[in-house]
Amino acid sequence: MSKNAFYAQSGGVSAVINASACGVLETARRYPNSIAKVLAGRDGIIGALTEDLIDTSLESEDAIAALKHAPGAAFGSCRYKLGAVTEHRALYERLVEVFKAHDIGYFFYNGGGDSQDTTYKVSLVSTELSNPIVCVGVPKTVDNDLPITDCSPGFGSMAKYLATSVREAAFDLMAMSRTSTKVFVLEVMGRHAGWATAACALAAEDESDAPHVLLFPEIAFDEERFLAKVKSALERYDHCVIAVSEGVKGSNGAFLSAGSEDAFGHAQLGGVAPLIARLISTKLHCRCHWAVPDYLQRSGRHIASETDVEQAYTVGWAAVEFAINGRSAIMPAIRRISDIPYRWDIVEAPLAAIANKEKLLPRDFISDDEFGITEAARRYLAPLIVGESYPPYRHGLPAYVRLQNVAVPRKLAEAFDIQS
Amino acid sequence: MSKNAFYAQSGGVSAVINASACGVLETARRYPNSIAKVLAGRDGIIGALTEDLIDTSLESEDAIAALKHAPGAAFGSCRYKLGAVTEHRALYERLVEVFKAHDIGYFFYNGGGDSQDTTYKVSLVSTELSNPIVCVGVPKTVDNDLPITDCSPGFGSMAKYLATSVREAAFDLMAMSRTSTKVFVLEVMGRHAGWATAACALAAEDESDAPHVLLFPEIAFDEERFLAKVKSALERYDHCVIAVSEGVKGSNGAFLSAGSEDAFGHAQLGGVAPLIARLISTKLHCRCHWAVPDYLQRSGRHIASETDVEQAYTVGWAAVEFAINGRSAIMPAIRRISDIPYRWDIVEAPLAAIANKEKLLPRDFISDDEFGITEAARRYLAPLIVGESYPPYRHGLPAYVRLQNVAVPRKLAEAFDIQS
Repeated sequence: MSKNAFYAQSGGVSAVINASACGVLETARRYPNSIAKVLAGRDGIIGALTEDLIDTSLESEDAIAALKHAPGAAFGSCRYKLGAVTEHRALYERLVEVFKAHDIGYFFYNGGGDSQDTTYKVSLVSTELSNPIVCVGVPKTVDNDLPITDCSPGFGSMAKYLATSVREAAFDLMAMSRTSTKVFVLEVMGRHAGWATAACALAAEDESDAPHVLLFPEIAFDEERFLAKVKSALERYDHCVIAVSEGVKGSNGAFLSAGSEDAFGHAQLGGVAPLIARLISTKLHCRCHWAVPDYLQRSGRHIASETDVEQAYTVGWAAVEFAINGRSAIMPAIRRISDIPYRWDIVEAPLAAIANKEKLLPRDFISDDEFGITEAARRYLAPLIVGESYPPYRHGLPAYVRLQNVAVPRKLAEAFDIQS
Repeated sequence: MSKNAFYAQSGGVSAVINASACGVLETARRYPNSIAKVLAGRDGIIGALTEDLIDTSLESEDAIAALKHAPGAAFGSCRYKLGAVTEHRALYERLVEVFKAHDIGYFFYNGGGDSQDTTYKVSLVSTELSNPIVCVGVPKTVDNDLPITDCSPGFGSMAKYLATSVREAAFDLMAMSRTSTKVFVLEVMGRHAGWATAACALAAEDESDAPHVLLFPEIAFDEERFLAKVKSALERYDHCVIAVSEGVKGSNGAFLSAGSEDAFGHAQLGGVAPLIARLISTKLHCRCHWAVPDYLQRSGRHIASETDVEQAYTVGWAAVEFAINGRSAIMPAIRRISDIPYRWDIVEAPLAAIANKEKLLPRDFISDDEFGITEAARRYLAPLIVGESYPPYRHGLPAYVRLQNVAVPRKLAEAFDIQS
């Protein structure tokens, strides 16, 4: 007796979250006896709360296959955290009500730590309400901060974008440094974990290669030591490339560049690169340029890592395989078997051990002087960016699919206001 | 009786200036009876002034061929303008002296408007000093502001980078706009000419597609009209993507974001995107993100336009062909024969007609409301980004060649201080 499945995408998007969607949808279609239809939430969990469901069975096989090449989130994503069950019980009950109305027996939620937490809570509440739903998280976060899994799909492609950009900017800087700019500062994502900052170091093949200085969110910014490091690089190479995490903090623990807050109460950052550039030009009297790629780094599907795309697809596939075998309150995690060659498989990780935990950069991944990475970090990071996975192009631009996203007719009488 | 040739790269680099170097060097090697060796200037014209010449004959054929895939400037570039002959006669005489000492009969200078001006002046002075040198400019500028030529090599690849980035950021924004950021502002290069800003519009296939608002340097910024345009886009699409030229000016003619000056006395810009984002979040009360790709956009060889790479190579090839036929004080220019399919050939353009002229965006390329482009602009721009020209990859990153750059022994007694 088959049931419908619910699938939704959550949190900041990535170059490959749609590859996970592709893995879920293609696999679900292979098990019609278990999964009748996959109904997708429009804009993540909000689609479930507002009963705004998308009938994915209306999308062609070609359109589903093309998701493997498309950035963004094909069904829409959201920043919307459900909160504690005790305080927001009505939200969880509403979810279970909608799922019951649409005969949903499987819940797949594709996101980072907050989303795994939601998935876990839905599994608890649905069981408690005697309407048990098989709940499986699908990992995704460019921040790479999910625990247990070797890496988080989305990170490898951002890492490849960043390391490529550092290398290209360094060729630019080297060519011009004699009479023009000598310092280039690249600001990268990562509020608390320095994975993206560390990935920039993959651009270097030799010690003299860019990036010369990394500023991690895990290490308190020390102006004097930093300027000495930059000065030393300038003396040795006549140019200096710096990668700085948006989340770098001063010794007082405050973000160097603090901004407004996002919907989850996280600080919305951006703009530390110009600050660092101004510091250098003022104190070291040399010309600086800076770049803030912002969304370009997490949505740069044109330079995605093939390894990352494969992993993103595979966790989607594995989520469905686990689900039809009745495994619930779990998330498929990537397990590393070897570094060189990079071999990995999928294991089952309990959501209880994942929800709301952040995996920071281990201290032994950061070099002694705190401005670079260690060989251990390089061994970990290097395989994640390997392989190119070019999207198709049309008229010189990547051709990214857009789904029809036809809504399923509503079955419940009451509307639901997500502000409530 | 063969002579040596001098080749140098000048001004801001691009993703494809080395493809022009490849065209020059490979072609010169095919004419040993005319051109003995190509000596490259280290860091542009500075290499000639300081007699710091690179013996390119020591580079392997493979290394030269690999230049077609490498960003930056393989021999170094510079921002160094020679100025008027009447005021800086010593510089020009020094150049001719160095060229005489190294038996240089051909001068190839690869750059934008300032470089074409230098090339023209060298041709005049060398003739006047009874040591006539065949002087041929090789066009290059991501700003696309050289006159006569259909486009400037370097621009097509930057255009492709920008249009791709706009499209990818738009997929990101669309996925998240319901609960998160609604406006994305991308700052693009182009001090005076809005070519790069216009190229962003290639990302759109339909009227509803990003970018929704362009801010050109040719159009004075009008806050009220701009905010009304953004508001209207938000009402229609619930998100809005804006591409803003670094050179956008207020109604008083001053740059919105003015910075320090570069070596040519040009204002060094950057940072108008955060300013626009702040304006929108303050006045329209919605969340904005902004990106400043800076050097990433002009050195993004990984997303180069195949058309641009071909044109860059071809102008290098043509420069040598013209030179060995004795044509001097000219520049190979690209002539458009048809838009669809895009067909072009190379014609001879006199440097006198090129030097120090800037080709701005024609008014009929800007839409009536001044926030978009016309069909004429689209017809012009579309072919320039067509085709992909992927570099080789190693360990997941583009493998960009580095030459040995062995110096030719000095022949002159006097050193030369470029500060003088």
